[in-house]
Amino acid sequence: MELPVLIDTLRAALEHDTAHLLRDQLEDVHPADYAAALTEFSATELWTLLTVLPRAEQAEVFGYLPAEVQVKLAISISRRKLSPIIRQMSSDERADLFNRLTEEQRDTLLPALAQAEREDLLRLSAHEEGSAGAIMTSDYAVLPPDLTVREAIEVLRLEAPDKETIYSSYVVDKARQLIGVVSLRDLILAPVSMRVDDLMNHDPIYASVDMPQEEVASLIAKYDLLALPIVNEQHQMVGIVTYDDAMDVVAEEATEDFHKTATIGKLESSVKHAGIGLLYRKRVFWLVVLVFGNIFSGAGIAYFEETIASYLALLFFLPLLIASSGNAGAQSGTLMVRALATGDVKLRDWGSLLGKECLVAGLLGLTMSAAVVGLGLWRGGPDIAVVVALTMMLVVLVGSLIGLSLPFLLSRFNMDPATASGPLITSIADVAGVLLYFSIATWYLGL
Amino acid sequence: MELPVLIDTLRAALEHDTAHLLRDQLEDVHPADYAAALTEFSATELWTLLTVLPRAEQAEVFGYLPAEVQVKLAISISRRKLSPIIRQMSSDERADLFNRLTEEQRDTLLPALAQAEREDLLRLSAHEEGSAGAIMTSDYAVLPPDLTVREAIEVLRLEAPDKETIYSSYVVDKARQLIGVVSLRDLILAPVSMRVDDLMNHDPIYASVDMPQEEVASLIAKYDLLALPIVNEQHQMVGIVTYDDAMDVVAEEATEDFHKTATIGKLESSVKHAGIGLLYRKRVFWLVVLVFGNIFSGAGIAYFEETIASYLALLFFLPLLIASSGNAGAQSGTLMVRALATGDVKLRDWGSLLGKECLVAGLLGLTMSAAVVGLGLWRGGPDIAVVVALTMMLVVLVGSLIGLSLPFLLSRFNMDPATASGPLITSIADVAGVLLYFSIATWYLGL
Repeated sequence: MELPVLIDTLRAALEHDTAHLLRDQLEDVHPADYAAALTEFSATELWTLLTVLPRAEQAEVFGYLPAEVQVKLAISISRRKLSPIIRQMSSDERADLFNRLTEEQRDTLLPALAQAEREDLLRLSAHEEGSAGAIMTSDYAVLPPDLTVREAIEVLRLEAPDKETIYSSYVVDKARQLIGVVSLRDLILAPVSMRVDDLMNHDPIYASVDMPQEEVASLIAKYDLLALPIVNEQHQMVGIVTYDDAMDVVAEEATEDFHKTATIGKLESSVKHAGIGLLYRKRVFWLVVLVFGNIFSGAGIAYFEETIASYLALLFFLPLLIASSGNAGAQSGTLMVRALATGDVKLRDWGSLLGKECLVAGLLGLTMSAAVVGLGLWRGGPDIAVVVALTMMLVVLVGSLIGLSLPFLLSRFNMDPATASGPLITSIADVAGVLLYFSIATWYLGL
Repeated sequence: MELPVLIDTLRAALEHDTAHLLRDQLEDVHPADYAAALTEFSATELWTLLTVLPRAEQAEVFGYLPAEVQVKLAISISRRKLSPIIRQMSSDERADLFNRLTEEQRDTLLPALAQAEREDLLRLSAHEEGSAGAIMTSDYAVLPPDLTVREAIEVLRLEAPDKETIYSSYVVDKARQLIGVVSLRDLILAPVSMRVDDLMNHDPIYASVDMPQEEVASLIAKYDLLALPIVNEQHQMVGIVTYDDAMDVVAEEATEDFHKTATIGKLESSVKHAGIGLLYRKRVFWLVVLVFGNIFSGAGIAYFEETIASYLALLFFLPLLIASSGNAGAQSGTLMVRALATGDVKLRDWGSLLGKECLVAGLLGLTMSAAVVGLGLWRGGPDIAVVVALTMMLVVLVGSLIGLSLPFLLSRFNMDPATASGPLITSIADVAGVLLYFSIATWYLGL
């Protein structure tokens, strides 16, 4: 069923009070689609439509709801009604929800859980946001090393309903330390009497709980893993991060970096659902900071007021010269920010990239000079044409080198290179552009 | 083994001519890591180091090499030596390589393949770049509907070595039309005498061969799939796209959009390995186009030359006013470009977002006005302060609305919204800023 059709069906059912008859119609609807449709309804309506489903599917659909909607429900629906759903959620989704609630709301929900679930929840939500610990799930399949393949498959068959995946099983010793990993594919292919520790990979790829989530995601992408085991400081197995959560991290990090290129702060919510106050707060800081950065450009212009007063024609070229400097800088800056984020380029590559950038930017500068020299002749005469062409060459070069270097500089001092965004580089390149332009003009025109 | 250590080990082995003794040392090295180390060597050295491995692993490592390196090897190594590796590659990786070769190089490689492989390769590489067909693999597991679970598992056991995944199997009828999907998890859990068509999901999520790859990736992410079946126009099953390829697509598309925000053309190679000519070509087009965009700002300034000549102090504020307009525009533009790319926002949302943006940008404009009014008083006196504050308010609002609307406009006319990048929006916002500023000044100062 297409989303608009589904929404209309649900709306009609609510209006005619026939929601309880929906269950059969919904059988073929994917939980992700049902969740998407539910976001169009109010909390009470949503609850009515959610509880039409069989209990097990309620938790699954609930897990697909956007975080903001989950919180809204958690606050507005009584604990007694909500707790069966919370109990059936996967452990990582439950911890995510929990982390978005206030202390008071958490205290209301906690008693709804059994002792073991409660401890697991508190353990999972204790990890720092953005770390492997914060996105891992504790619902993974564990095998002792001394089982036979036949026994191992039997264990997995029994445990499957509660596990996030049974395609990768983790082999731990008595101290719960990770000693191997075995795939269901290998188990299926192996002779049934073979021992797990003869079959398993003894050197599994793993990560520690405090590894940043973007590194976790790139390990999963690099090694094409279904799930990455997570260990604590004692090398004990504490969770797994699955490929689908890694995909979400990749998208989330890309969005965050994207927003940074336009000096927008980290937005946890979707743009569509974000409130006015939130959007204002995420945008205002850098806008104001950059104003003060641009005062230097203004001061540069003021300093050269006499030059400008003598040759007002110079002003015509000001926007295109400083814009070109900023644009060239934004280009090389963006190339570096992204290459650093994806690991294509490392800090130590700066030197060799600088040499290459000098050549590329030099060529770009020459092209840009050629593009404006005619304009200079037409609008300002031969002298101004020379000044404009010379300045263009230099500002494209200088802008590019600033754009290339700033992300490395920030990275070197452990700041996020993505902060070296277009607007920041543009502001710096603008100042350089103003100073270069009027210095060259003052010198060449003999003022 | 850490990458630098591995590289040193390999270099030493080459120097002492002991590469053939490496095999045992390499047993625990992941193919992805070995491939990363190999990129540090020349084609001939690389070949020596690659062929140290057992045959099956050679193909796996080869598949992990960057595309440029694969092509370099395909060109420099003789067909007789290379063909066993090409034959063992997974079908999608083989088609990727093939698509990067010249016609002549292809003709050299084709005879090295068996008839069936050759046909499969030609079929796969016939699909348009960027479509589902171009990234799918034909190594998927197929089950007839009338098998029992026991028989199905036996089939998968036999076929596993040649399949990309056996965790999802696709059920097709006699006409090869896709009629269901069944997971290995369900097969393992089900009673062994149950029939596959009683167990399978009859309404699987699928995509057609010509669906754009980013939509394929978002289907996989949305439904948390391990693999997505791909069908042709007759609804016949022709391939699958696996989650790991979808992750690569997500990263690739993010990089492409990222580069577009700084008006950089699509770069197929890594920044580190890209040549000077390539980088020049990817950057020069928009730089030159934008220069001509900025002529309008210059013309705006020239038009108001008299106003400027009377109040040279106005120039001090020019950079910060036009930069603020551009920065605010880049912010709202970037928010929209990303939200459109991730599907958070649809074309039809433009109206409601416009209302919200007016409020947000209005607040931002007020804040920015307050931030500069003191500066205006100090540098220019009360009259100029009023002009500057009023202009700031308006340019932030106008810049934001341009930034918000441009991506929708492009999208509406089937152009990529990411083209509405920072520099393009900035250039347009600059013109608006210059005209607004000097118009207000001329009017308010009574010139």
